[in-house]
Amino acid sequence: MAKLREPEEVSMDTQIQHMLTVARSRGIETAFDRADQTSARCPFGSAGLCCRSCLEGPCRIVPNGSGPRRGVCGADADTLVARSLLNTMIQGASGHAEHGREVAAALLKTAEGKAPYVIRDVGKLMQVAKGLNLEMEGKSINEVAKAVALAALEDFQKHEGVMNWIEYRGHHKSREIWDKLGITPVNAHLEIAKAVTRNAMGGDADPLNLLLGSVTMGLVDGYSGLHLSSDLQDILFGTPKAVKFNYSLGVLDEKQINIAVHGHIPLLSEKIVEWAQILERKALTVGAEGINIVGVCCTGNELLMRQGVHAASSFSSQELVIVTGALEAMVVDIQCIMPGIQQVAECYHTEIITTMPHVKIAGATHVNFEPEYADDAAREIVERAIRNFAKRDPAKVVIPGGSVEAHAGFSVEQICEVTAKINADKPLQPLIDAIKNGAIRGVAAVIGCTNPREPQDIGNVTVARELLKNNVLIVTTGCAAHSLAKFGLMNEGGLEACGDSLKALLRQLGQHAGLSALPPALHMGSCVDNSRPLDLLSAIADELDVPISSLPAVGSCPETHSPKALTIGTYFMAHGVDVHVGVDPQVSGSNLVTRTLTGSREDKGITMDGLFGGKLIVEIDPVKAAAVLLERIDIKRRTLGI
Amino acid sequence: MAKLREPEEVSMDTQIQHMLTVARSRGIETAFDRADQTSARCPFGSAGLCCRSCLEGPCRIVPNGSGPRRGVCGADADTLVARSLLNTMIQGASGHAEHGREVAAALLKTAEGKAPYVIRDVGKLMQVAKGLNLEMEGKSINEVAKAVALAALEDFQKHEGVMNWIEYRGHHKSREIWDKLGITPVNAHLEIAKAVTRNAMGGDADPLNLLLGSVTMGLVDGYSGLHLSSDLQDILFGTPKAVKFNYSLGVLDEKQINIAVHGHIPLLSEKIVEWAQILERKALTVGAEGINIVGVCCTGNELLMRQGVHAASSFSSQELVIVTGALEAMVVDIQCIMPGIQQVAECYHTEIITTMPHVKIAGATHVNFEPEYADDAAREIVERAIRNFAKRDPAKVVIPGGSVEAHAGFSVEQICEVTAKINADKPLQPLIDAIKNGAIRGVAAVIGCTNPREPQDIGNVTVARELLKNNVLIVTTGCAAHSLAKFGLMNEGGLEACGDSLKALLRQLGQHAGLSALPPALHMGSCVDNSRPLDLLSAIADELDVPISSLPAVGSCPETHSPKALTIGTYFMAHGVDVHVGVDPQVSGSNLVTRTLTGSREDKGITMDGLFGGKLIVEIDPVKAAAVLLERIDIKRRTLGI
Repeated sequence: MAKLREPEEVSMDTQIQHMLTVARSRGIETAFDRADQTSARCPFGSAGLCCRSCLEGPCRIVPNGSGPRRGVCGADADTLVARSLLNTMIQGASGHAEHGREVAAALLKTAEGKAPYVIRDVGKLMQVAKGLNLEMEGKSINEVAKAVALAALEDFQKHEGVMNWIEYRGHHKSREIWDKLGITPVNAHLEIAKAVTRNAMGGDADPLNLLLGSVTMGLVDGYSGLHLSSDLQDILFGTPKAVKFNYSLGVLDEKQINIAVHGHIPLLSEKIVEWAQILERKALTVGAEGINIVGVCCTGNELLMRQGVHAASSFSSQELVIVTGALEAMVVDIQCIMPGIQQVAECYHTEIITTMPHVKIAGATHVNFEPEYADDAAREIVERAIRNFAKRDPAKVVIPGGSVEAHAGFSVEQICEVTAKINADKPLQPLIDAIKNGAIRGVAAVIGCTNPREPQDIGNVTVARELLKNNVLIVTTGCAAHSLAKFGLMNEGGLEACGDSLKALLRQLGQHAGLSALPPALHMGSCVDNSRPLDLLSAIADELDVPISSLPAVGSCPETHSPKALTIGTYFMAHGVDVHVGVDPQVSGSNLVTRTLTGSREDKGITMDGLFGGKLIVEIDPVKAAAVLLERIDIKRRTLGI
Repeated sequence: MAKLREPEEVSMDTQIQHMLTVARSRGIETAFDRADQTSARCPFGSAGLCCRSCLEGPCRIVPNGSGPRRGVCGADADTLVARSLLNTMIQGASGHAEHGREVAAALLKTAEGKAPYVIRDVGKLMQVAKGLNLEMEGKSINEVAKAVALAALEDFQKHEGVMNWIEYRGHHKSREIWDKLGITPVNAHLEIAKAVTRNAMGGDADPLNLLLGSVTMGLVDGYSGLHLSSDLQDILFGTPKAVKFNYSLGVLDEKQINIAVHGHIPLLSEKIVEWAQILERKALTVGAEGINIVGVCCTGNELLMRQGVHAASSFSSQELVIVTGALEAMVVDIQCIMPGIQQVAECYHTEIITTMPHVKIAGATHVNFEPEYADDAAREIVERAIRNFAKRDPAKVVIPGGSVEAHAGFSVEQICEVTAKINADKPLQPLIDAIKNGAIRGVAAVIGCTNPREPQDIGNVTVARELLKNNVLIVTTGCAAHSLAKFGLMNEGGLEACGDSLKALLRQLGQHAGLSALPPALHMGSCVDNSRPLDLLSAIADELDVPISSLPAVGSCPETHSPKALTIGTYFMAHGVDVHVGVDPQVSGSNLVTRTLTGSREDKGITMDGLFGGKLIVEIDPVKAAAVLLERIDIKRRTLGI
């Protein structure tokens, strides 16, 4: 048996440390323990040098050693590693594209009166319809919504031209580069199928061509996944505005029926919030004081951004929410759902409820979700949770005390609403001025995951704090946002982390937002909401008439675990934004691939930086990573002449 | 350095043995040697127990041993193996689906007058249009072709309902089962993206649900890949009819310019055949006696079925075609293209020419193919080959002598044309009578690949001969067909392999075909032409008013290497046809998955046999495999009461 890490090595969060101790004392295995057990990772797979694409293999190659230098088919290290990376990209892009498509299908059904949703943000609907150049004259709201939904679905159907969302949201200076390279996606599903095909046995064997294929996957992720999802979710559920919520395991309430919503697509979880209110009185009849919905992972982010629902856990500690013993149901949809939750739930009264026909867990309850019957599914789920309350064993309940207050809801619209109070005609101008005069040295999106094999929160929080103290404005999404919220970077107290000029600016802006200060980390939403930082950069670039790649902006995924984080990173790089990852991206088996991804434009050969103006920075140490990011920010400032 | 197998251990084919010796003597590495070097295969990957779907891993688990029993996320052996299998299925299905889509797009452009192809088989066009319930009244050929092409493209676009090709070609009794299970595909690309998503980190963790997902991929492969491709290729290039060709490396001609066409989609290779004729005289000017096109892999099958083009090599020995030193160009499109060909070509004057923008090989020439400019590409390729002739080094030329004559072209239409001479009203009746009275004990499709780590041809030929001597009618496709052709099972001499009743029937039928006998193995075409055996079975099942699963029919892939073979096998099983594979399908890490795939309907728990009426038979020994197949044939005969 491998040695398990001490709780304080596993997470910075004392509540997580405590609950891990509880889990271990109860003989419950969690992902943190399993990460320790699998700590002897395969050296081939870790370097991208393993191939399982046909029955000639598996092949494991040793490019410079004594083992085979090529796979049976003749593929060398460069090809294997490039394919391995593309495979990761396909997985990431598919997840987000399917998220976008599910929401588009729900919007269509809503517009047709077939699904029980309403258009909550008509202004956003009109803005998106206009952006898509749709005819709106004389049309009803539902007719416009239908046209928007059909335009969205076209991005999974058209066989010629360019995705509508790229025409709409893609920055024209980036587009020029993509078009010239022939990598602009036509439709998400077509590109995914093509990428799978090129990556299969006997397919593409040109590592640079494969890397361009990875960039296409990044664009598929960015436009059919992120932008399309954010836009349509804003239309259906409202564009986020400043909102307050609490964070940590302590948001579970012993006196209430607790339901955790976990996954990504907010279609069902929004309905669960609704039905929890409707059925509140029923909860009283079973002796509970109410129904407490808490968020996990990106479903958590979606709900906190729009509903102020409290957030309980990021990815890596999802099982510990169950270990509290106070959870009546964990409702999951898709992506980042650890199968391990079912094992943990079996030690408690917690019911794991899967909701998508193609995402089940053996042993869990399945309540099927279809937009048309969203109310039925949500009602059934809440009623199940109410019934489960009676099965709770009070002796097993351990909820850590306390939680952290945080402010979120910083959509581009919300940010501009604040800055417009300084300059109503040009709302971006106060930000641009601050960047130009150095009050803001640069902008960093701290995004991505937590990863059970990495110490939780340390990477995310350290990168953010290092950058904040150097006056870099932080925007954040995903599980990284969970880390920053827990460690006080989304409330006024967090201002102490900021350099003086940034602190002053956040105070000034905050007053216009009706707060004493804006929080140092602006929470922009879930992982699909990584569209929002790009939209902000795109608007600033337009204002300055420069490409996005000229801006002193960087991305950082200090604790990534998911392929989606790498795809999002690639989408950022395709726009010329440097991206840091703090976990080995498993491409070390190929010098060519590594050099292409991480090299600078001045280096020999083709590099991402040379092609797009943004490169990959792999750095495990978060302090060093921040230093490199600052360096890159300063290079871009100099190039921009500011 | 691992010990290399002796040439006679590598292949039954003495020409291949000889050329392997030549390659080794010249210090040229081929897939056979690399297979020996990688003979120590990863025990985790080989059992499906390795997962590289996120940056928590790679995870390697040991379900019953001392290592980790679950991945970091909590996925157990059953989930890992089921995902691993689904991943294989996604790769297989995507390849064939993309093949279908490329042909559909070319048909559309042809119909619109934008691509230089003609509708060669108007009868087939009308038959397909009718099958699709398209309005044909008053429409021109091109208008009907356009409607067919658009119906085909819809199978990659529609978001509701069922794929058009399933409505058209799917057997209604199988459909009932698929619909009830909710696994009938809506559109190929949508199902592929969904499958990638469900299979990614945090997705589907229910092994049985994942296995149903694999069946959906089988149906995607079968209908958007196989049937759609065969139908549209027949429309564009003609439905195959009885044709004669020669097989073996000996079909290369020292005195001619030799061009090998390799890959799968016949759009370009048909044009190369055309341009080789047009430019024949130009060949004379460089001192060659002509231009000799030879086929490799499935492109070879496509061209021999319709044009009688000679075939040089199946998959595993593709590099040895270059080792002859007499090859001016090897033109490749997609799938089963070993990157190793480029390395070998660099030792010769041979030019490797890639033709698809998303399938390149580092170091090779790229001549881009688009249907609109098919003539330009084909012309440039043939001209390049002509120019390369001067660079040939005569001292390096080694072409083994001799080749085998073979008869092919056995589309369902061609078979029915023969049998209709016995019973014009009911052309299938002679076959049905023969099955009923036992002259034909059963029907076996011997299909699939050759695999460099397996002794070439032995499995394919042995299974076929064992079945033939037991009066099982053999139909064949793909690289398995190459094996059977080389070993005389596609000419009259092969009749000696047949049992008496089968032999008599083949003689009787042959006389109606203008041959002295039908060959014992009826070559039905390329891997996508595995639609044809199913169409034959479907027609017989209709005639008898039974499901396909009742028929004494089996499939066998004795030497599979490609994921596509497993997807095709799954598509057969989904119709209730038992399928043998002679290479470990790498699912041994899960008892549940293995039992579900290979168990019988009488076994406990859910099995493929119980759900669909067909199961997987894993048997490495071809003699034993044939015995099991005969047993299964006899069980089905008894159930059918014959």
